[in-house]
Amino acid sequence: MSEALKKGRALVANMNPGLETALAERYDAAVPDMAETLVEWAYGRHYAREGVDLKTRQLCTIAALTALGGHTAPQLKVNIDHTLAAGASEREILEIIWQMSVYGGMPAAINGLNAAMDRFQELKR
Amino acid sequence: MSEALKKGRALVANMNPGLETALAERYDAAVPDMAETLVEWAYGRHYAREGVDLKTRQLCTIAALTALGGHTAPQLKVNIDHTLAAGASEREILEIIWQMSVYGGMPAAINGLNAAMDRFQELKR
Amino acid sequence: MSEALKKGRALVANMNPGLETALAERYDAAVPDMAETLVEWAYGRHYAREGVDLKTRQLCTIAALTALGGHTAPQLKVNIDHTLAAGASEREILEIIWQMSVYGGMPAAINGLNAAMDRFQELKR
Amino acid sequence: MSEALKKGRALVANMNPGLETALAERYDAAVPDMAETLVEWAYGRHYAREGVDLKTRQLCTIAALTALGGHTAPQLKVNIDHTLAAGASEREILEIIWQMSVYGGMPAAINGLNAAMDRFQELKR
Amino acid sequence: MSEALKKGRALVANMNPGLETALAERYDAAVPDMAETLVEWAYGRHYAREGVDLKTRQLCTIAALTALGGHTAPQLKVNIDHTLAAGASEREILEIIWQMSVYGGMPAAINGLNAAMDRFQELKR
Amino acid sequence: MSEALKKGRALVANMNPGLETALAERYDAAVPDMAETLVEWAYGRHYAREGVDLKTRQLCTIAALTALGGHTAPQLKVNIDHTLAAGASEREILEIIWQMSVYGGMPAAINGLNAAMDRFQELKR
Repeated sequence: MSEALKKGRALVANMNPGLETALAERYDAAVPDMAETLVEWAYGRHYAREGVDLKTRQLCTIAALTALGGHTAPQLKVNIDHTLAAGASEREILEIIWQMSVYGGMPAAINGLNAAMDRFQELKR
Repeated sequence: MSEALKKGRALVANMNPGLETALAERYDAAVPDMAETLVEWAYGRHYAREGVDLKTRQLCTIAALTALGGHTAPQLKVNIDHTLAAGASEREILEIIWQMSVYGGMPAAINGLNAAMDRFQELKR
Repeated sequence: MSEALKKGRALVANMNPGLETALAERYDAAVPDMAETLVEWAYGRHYAREGVDLKTRQLCTIAALTALGGHTAPQLKVNIDHTLAAGASEREILEIIWQMSVYGGMPAAINGLNAAMDRFQELKR
Repeated sequence: MSEALKKGRALVANMNPGLETALAERYDAAVPDMAETLVEWAYGRHYAREGVDLKTRQLCTIAALTALGGHTAPQLKVNIDHTLAAGASEREILEIIWQMSVYGGMPAAINGLNAAMDRFQELKR
Repeated sequence: MSEALKKGRALVANMNPGLETALAERYDAAVPDMAETLVEWAYGRHYAREGVDLKTRQLCTIAALTALGGHTAPQLKVNIDHTLAAGASEREILEIIWQMSVYGGMPAAINGLNAAMDRFQELKR
Repeated sequence: MSEALKKGRALVANMNPGLETALAERYDAAVPDMAETLVEWAYGRHYAREGVDLKTRQLCTIAALTALGGHTAPQLKVNIDHTLAAGASEREILEIIWQMSVYGGMPAAINGLNAAMDRFQELKR
C-alpha cells in the first residue's frame, strides 16, 4: 500500500468510515481500482497534506463545488457531510455558498443553497 | 449611501484602500457607478457579512477562482493580495490552489499555481 | 432603504410581484438578507440601469443562462417568465436559445430548448 | 439538399436511423429546421470528415461531454449509444470517462460514470 | 453551394466582408473547409434565421461570450465589431457585459469589460 | 515508491523524459511533492491503465482540453507533444480539436486550433 493511500485511509476513517467500501461496491467492477485511486488521490495526496486545517480545506471545497455550477450537487452533498464532520456549522457552509454568487454567478449560488438546504433536511430525518 | 456600501467601503479601506478609486478611474466613464456597485455588492453584501472570518472567506475565493479556470488569473492575483492582507500565508494560498486539482482538474490547478507564484514574485520586487 | 433596492423593488413589482417574498420565505432564515440582496443587486443595480431596454436585457440573460449549460435550468425557467413579461415572444426566446449552439455547444442549446419547451407547457396548464 | 446534409444523413442512417425524425418531431415545430441543421452540422460537417475513424471520434466526444460536467448527461447517454454502435466496448467508454477526472475534476468524472452505468443498465433491459 | 452557405455569405458580406477569406487563409490548409463550414453554420444556419433582428442576436452573443469567461476574449472582440456593424452602440455593449456579473460572476464581467474597452480603443486608432 | 508512481514514471520516461524533473524544479519548493503526485495520479493511475491504447487516450485528452475552453492552452500544448509522441499525426489532432466546436462551442474550437497551430510551428523551429 502506498504511503498516500495509507494516509488517505486514515483520514477517511475519521470523516466518512464507509466511503471507500461504498465507492468500491458501486464502481470497482466497472472501473477497477476506482475506490482506492480516489482515496489515495483526494484524501492521501490532498486533504492529508499539511499547511491548512481540514475544516478550512473542506469549506474551500464547498466554495469550488458551488462555483462550478449546479451539476456538482451530488458531490456538494457528500462534501457537506464531510465539512460538518470537520467541525463547520451549517451557517458557515451557507455563508460560503452564498458568497459564491460574486464569483460563479447567482445561478451557481442559488443551486448551491438549494443542495445544502436539502442535505441539511435529509440529515435531520 | 446605502448601509451595504458603507460597510463595503469600511472593509476595503483596510484591505485595499485604493481599490474603489482605481476601479472608478478605469471603468466609471464607460459603465457609470461600476466601482460603487462592486464595493457595495462584493464587500458590503458578502465579505462584510457575519458568520465566517475574513481569512477563511478569502481562501474560499482563491479556491473558487482557481476551480473556474485560468481565465480568472487577473482576479486571482487581486484576491491573493487581499488574502495575504487578511492574514493568510503564501503556503496556505498555494495549498488551497493545489487542492483544486481534485475539483477543477489539473489544468485549473496548474494555471492557478502559476498565477500565484507570479504574483508572489511581483510582490517581492 | 438604498436607492438601488428601491429601484429593484419597483422593477420586480411589475415583472414578478411575488419574487422577493418567495425568496425571503425560502432563503432568509438560512441566509439573512438574501432576498433583499438579490433584488438590490440583480434588479436595482443591473436591470434598472439605463442604456438597454428590459426586453433586450432579458433576452441576453436567456443567452447567458443557456450558454452556461443545463445546470441553470431552474434560473432559465424563472427568466423565461420575466422575458415573456418584458414583451418577448416564445419564438424569440427559442431562437436565442438555439443560437447558443454556436457559442456554448450543442448540449447547452438542447438542454436550453428542453427547459424552455417544458416551461411554455407549464404556463399553458 | 446540401452535400453536408447528404453525408450527415448517410452516417446517421448507420449509427442511429431514427435520430433525425425523433429530433424533428420534438423540436421542429418550435425551432424550424432544427433537426436538419443538427444532422448537417454535427454529422455532415464533423463526424463524416476524413482523418479520424468514427470510433475514435466518438470516444473523444465521450471525453468532452464528461469534462464539461454532469449537466450534459442526456447528451452523454445518446453518445454512449453512438459510441457502442461505432464499435467501442463498455470498458473503453468507462476508461475514457474515468480519465477525465484528471482534466475536468472528480465531480465531472463521477457524474459521467453514473450516467454511463445507468445507460448500460437501460440497454440491458 | 448549400442554401445555408449562400445565406451565410450574404450576411457576412454586409457585416464583415473579409471574414471568410481571412478564416480560409488562416485555417483551411490545416482543417479543410473550416471557413466555409463556419460561415454556413454560424451565419447561414443561425444569424440569418428569422424571428430575432440581427442587433439583438449580436447583443445576445456578447452576453454569452462574456458569461463563458475571459478565455473567449478573441471571439468577443470579433463580435464587438459585428455588434457595432449591426447598429449597437458602445454603451449598449458595455451594459450587457456588465449585466453578466449577475450570471457569470464578477471575473467574467470584468474580463469582458476589459476586452471591450481594449477593442473600442483599437478601433479609434 | 508506490506501484502507481512506478508505472507513471515508466510511462513518462517514454513520452516526455524530462517532465517530472521540470515539474519538480518549477513547483516542488512551493508545493512539496507536486511533481511526484502529478506523475502518480495522471500517468500511473490513468494513462498506464489497461483497456484503451495510449494514442486514443491522448486524443481524448486533446478533446477535453479543447472543450474546456481556451484557458487550458498551456496544457493543450504539452499534451499535443505527448499525443504526437503516442503516434498521432498533426491532422488527427486538428480534426479532434475542430470536432469540439459541436460540444464546447466555436470559441473553444478556434482557441484550440490556434494553440495547436502555434505549437506545430514551435516544434518546427
